[in-house]
Amino acid sequence: MRAALKTFLLASVLVTGVARAGSVDPLPSWNDTAARRAIISFVRDVTTPNSPRFVPEAERIAVFDHDGTLWAEQPMYVQLAFALDRVKALAPQHPEWKTTPPFSAVLSGDLKALAAAGEKGLLDLLVATHAGMTTDEFAATVSDWLAKARHPRFGRPYTETVYQPMLELLAYLRANGFKTYLVSGGGVEMIRSFSERVYGVPPEQVVGSTIATEYRVKEGVPAIVRLPKVDFVDDKAGKAVGIQKFIGRRPILAFGNSDGDFQMLEWTTAGPGPRLGLILRHDDAEREYAYDRKSPFGRLDKALDEAPGKGWRIVSMKDDWKSVFPATR
Amino acid sequence: MRAALKTFLLASVLVTGVARAGSVDPLPSWNDTAARRAIISFVRDVTTPNSPRFVPEAERIAVFDHDGTLWAEQPMYVQLAFALDRVKALAPQHPEWKTTPPFSAVLSGDLKALAAAGEKGLLDLLVATHAGMTTDEFAATVSDWLAKARHPRFGRPYTETVYQPMLELLAYLRANGFKTYLVSGGGVEMIRSFSERVYGVPPEQVVGSTIATEYRVKEGVPAIVRLPKVDFVDDKAGKAVGIQKFIGRRPILAFGNSDGDFQMLEWTTAGPGPRLGLILRHDDAEREYAYDRKSPFGRLDKALDEAPGKGWRIVSMKDDWKSVFPATR
Repeated sequence: MRAALKTFLLASVLVTGVARAGSVDPLPSWNDTAARRAIISFVRDVTTPNSPRFVPEAERIAVFDHDGTLWAEQPMYVQLAFALDRVKALAPQHPEWKTTPPFSAVLSGDLKALAAAGEKGLLDLLVATHAGMTTDEFAATVSDWLAKARHPRFGRPYTETVYQPMLELLAYLRANGFKTYLVSGGGVEMIRSFSERVYGVPPEQVVGSTIATEYRVKEGVPAIVRLPKVDFVDDKAGKAVGIQKFIGRRPILAFGNSDGDFQMLEWTTAGPGPRLGLILRHDDAEREYAYDRKSPFGRLDKALDEAPGKGWRIVSMKDDWKSVFPATR
Repeated sequence: MRAALKTFLLASVLVTGVARAGSVDPLPSWNDTAARRAIISFVRDVTTPNSPRFVPEAERIAVFDHDGTLWAEQPMYVQLAFALDRVKALAPQHPEWKTTPPFSAVLSGDLKALAAAGEKGLLDLLVATHAGMTTDEFAATVSDWLAKARHPRFGRPYTETVYQPMLELLAYLRANGFKTYLVSGGGVEMIRSFSERVYGVPPEQVVGSTIATEYRVKEGVPAIVRLPKVDFVDDKAGKAVGIQKFIGRRPILAFGNSDGDFQMLEWTTAGPGPRLGLILRHDDAEREYAYDRKSPFGRLDKALDEAPGKGWRIVSMKDDWKSVFPATR
């Protein structure tokens, strides 16, 4: 019993104590650099009553991009890896795919032909792998896949190629009364299937791209069916629109890593009162990846140029983070 | 200072104590009838650890229709009253409206001609009064209007024609770890402008119909502009779709009052484990209104017939509620 109690107390400290107690480092995987100090100083300001920069708890909304901000997006978006694997898994039921692009390109592993299929090709893949089932069935398929799939370079489940410093930041913000949201260009249902377990972010605090759905009752059993039609693209200007549509309040902190996050950062930081905009710079080829202006995934170009003028702070993976991924279990 | 302390303590009791303490009645405006006992027994079950009907806090999602469930929807939807008043306010800038239906019908007070304009006419009114401004401007217009407008029969601001027993129920559920959501056929931005103040429901927990919006930057200042196009209708089957899209989890409690809530009730109560579906019956012509199958606003027909078979409980305004509206201040 005493050991159990000790474990319990230790767990309590790990979960809440780290972030709250002044004497314990709330961000142990962050180096003591200007970026870390800016975050801590912002949080201290907005949580100090009677401070001119105090923000009531209800308005402490923080939004985080997902791909490349909370988990690795190289060598390709995880959702794309999922779609490619699904095409392979579903191929026996679709013999015609062997000769039909873009499916044939996926099945023969011809990534050049796949790239040549362009947006139309990607949309065909999306529809074939993300629609035509109920939301419950889709969530189960995603969970099964995530349990088995491994990142090609790191050999870990994708849910463990998340960034340890960001997990700490999310917990630190929540311990200080922030409501943390994911705002992703990716499909919302995929992320919702693991956001609570992995990030401590409940499904209702995930904003993302949506597919059209329809409510159907079959033999008395209702279901929500995913249709082969894109409903909303939560990327670029869509991120600001999505924030207003799903959250209905302007955030005071935004953290992104690519040009797809430009408008989310702009909308967040242009508001009155204290605001913090942060951009994660992938400059760490050794521990993760180094990419920016020319990457097909997570291109960072315009936002990098405009960051100084807009007061957005660049977080360098290489210099600002002690570690990148969580310790393996 | 002592008086201030006393006020503070009293306020604390009013806000949280009433709903929590076992010895204090959590629902003082409800008569001690079967409906009240069913609610209390449901809440006790899902919050009792080790009970076979226990539901973890994260899954305690409760959804409430708005018009006719939380506030009066007679003699017409409040949003329609707003639209009609806006037409009158904007008329000087639109001399052509004097001869253009449906605006001419509104300006001459010809409700028959207005009704004859049908859905197309209502859409024209909606677009003219709800689009063409930023989301911030729209919220300010709604707030100004709500501060001045009065309910034609009760002479109160619309935000005080809310139902006292429902305010108590919302607070009681939250005190028991529920997350309370509004799921309305009405426009989401209108409700969000007062949901926190009136119901204790923050903007991000309001699901409703949406108008298309666009992110625009004018002279360096970003804004979200409301476009003359309906984006999503959160009514009937749309309520189940909206719940999945905005919340991403199936609720365990749903409270509605009309056929527009049928699918929300069905989707909620068809799930596994403990579920509670409730329908408010407007049978109190003396204190509020009596209407059901033939009402143009809040028609209750199919849901009334199917309630017994589906296990949905009817709450009678006349029999189950001690009082209807909050005491005037």
